[in-house]
Amino acid sequence: MIERLTVIGVGLIGGSLARALRDARAVREVTGFGRSLSNLELAAELGVIDRVAVSLADAVRDANVVVLATPVGAMPEMLNGIGSVLPETTVVTDVGSTKESVMAAAQSALGEKYSRFVAGHPIAGTEQSGVAAAVADLFSQRRVILTPDVDTDVEAVSKVVAMWQATGAHVMSMSAAEHDRVLAASSHLPHVLAYALVDMLVRRDDHRAIFDCVGGGFRDFTRIASSDPVMWRDICLANRQAIVAMLNQFHDNLSDTIEAIERGDGDFLLDTFTRAKHARDKIFHSLPEA
Amino acid sequence: MIERLTVIGVGLIGGSLARALRDARAVREVTGFGRSLSNLELAAELGVIDRVAVSLADAVRDANVVVLATPVGAMPEMLNGIGSVLPETTVVTDVGSTKESVMAAAQSALGEKYSRFVAGHPIAGTEQSGVAAAVADLFSQRRVILTPDVDTDVEAVSKVVAMWQATGAHVMSMSAAEHDRVLAASSHLPHVLAYALVDMLVRRDDHRAIFDCVGGGFRDFTRIASSDPVMWRDICLANRQAIVAMLNQFHDNLSDTIEAIERGDGDFLLDTFTRAKHARDKIFHSLPEA
Repeated sequence: MIERLTVIGVGLIGGSLARALRDARAVREVTGFGRSLSNLELAAELGVIDRVAVSLADAVRDANVVVLATPVGAMPEMLNGIGSVLPETTVVTDVGSTKESVMAAAQSALGEKYSRFVAGHPIAGTEQSGVAAAVADLFSQRRVILTPDVDTDVEAVSKVVAMWQATGAHVMSMSAAEHDRVLAASSHLPHVLAYALVDMLVRRDDHRAIFDCVGGGFRDFTRIASSDPVMWRDICLANRQAIVAMLNQFHDNLSDTIEAIERGDGDFLLDTFTRAKHARDKIFHSLPEA
Repeated sequence: MIERLTVIGVGLIGGSLARALRDARAVREVTGFGRSLSNLELAAELGVIDRVAVSLADAVRDANVVVLATPVGAMPEMLNGIGSVLPETTVVTDVGSTKESVMAAAQSALGEKYSRFVAGHPIAGTEQSGVAAAVADLFSQRRVILTPDVDTDVEAVSKVVAMWQATGAHVMSMSAAEHDRVLAASSHLPHVLAYALVDMLVRRDDHRAIFDCVGGGFRDFTRIASSDPVMWRDICLANRQAIVAMLNQFHDNLSDTIEAIERGDGDFLLDTFTRAKHARDKIFHSLPEA
């Protein structure tokens, strides 16, 4: 049970976490803080938070656990704001999609209190954003990756593990570097490709005719291109190196595929498509499609 | 009402068309033909077809309408097989994802009977294939594009329009060249990108770690990579020129995005992502997500 939880950035993820912990009776009081007062008022109205904090100092003063759930680009500012006012015993965690950048910011902002910062990332979400989209079961059966540092306090880690387990999530851990490389492939790369595809098409003169002829394949392929642009700009900047490496590898592989189509190499295409289909079918064998 | 319909290639699309026309009482008898006898027997068992034809000649002998629903690569062979045995009054149509290649094959195979060939393409389907996946409502509220030639018989066209309308589809028409260019963008390009992404990832040494960390975004983005590889090899070969043009444009645009991430150009990324999000939200404003 968390007595007093503070969520900084009460959007889809922060709001869903609060809702999930309330439903599980794993939290007593939730305080919200963020840059948009109207959003915080909506969160209070929806029953996601109990109280709107008037400042960062007010937000963290009595908190047992503080969860940073802003876009990763805003986290350094928030961490700097709480560094001096954070109680010695408060555990801080985050839900950012990149981990090395957030941990570096936390280390610099929190000083000695960095030992009670537990970096985390729930692999959950939708293309929607905002507290109105928050739901209690967003993390149920989903994975949450924690990337504790070598000297992170084990009690702090276990508090964050328990918090996520209360939402129905499966918790795993790895190094921040591995997280950032793996997520560059499994999440960041697809998002950039989806954005790049839709952007390319909408800038064509014939985009109306193209968009008139889209089916379910296009709809699902581009769903992530409806995600929050600020969040994804921040992720691209924060995990720049790993994302560029993945994009360059994809770019090179795509050249090979283009050349194969140009020369009419049906065997190459059949091999590539078959390998991809088998891999994809295997990944989602046991997962529902919708 | 179609008295006798023949479906050549009784898979997801051909089987769903037969089911939809039966449900709408828009067909009296359905004959099936294809290369796999076991599949045809399954189709008969499931009630999708009434009768299995023993040869192409047997399949089309008494048919009022013949629908070609094989992968586009197999259509020239089927068209050549029916050219000499097709009755003078029979209307032939197809459901292929590329239209110029199929029409060229039909013209060459059917001679004077080409005037009763009406090229078509329903914008519907799932990543599944085979008659077991066929459903009667696959085309409901979906678009079907017809690409009649300048000298296509108008009565034949209107018969095919009525057939698709009976399934609940909206019928539109355009030139074959426009179809192939537009579909290269809205459908063929996303399929190649999805296959290329999954193939690139599965060939990485760390693919297990990557696939362990996929979420709903990856699942939806790659759904079309579970599509039938033979069908998509055929489409890439048949619409080679238009697909290569789209892929090259995407490849160039992706270079710009990679460079923007490399130099940390947040404004470029925010512009691109925002433009894409707005376009995508607008397309699917009125369509359900699932």
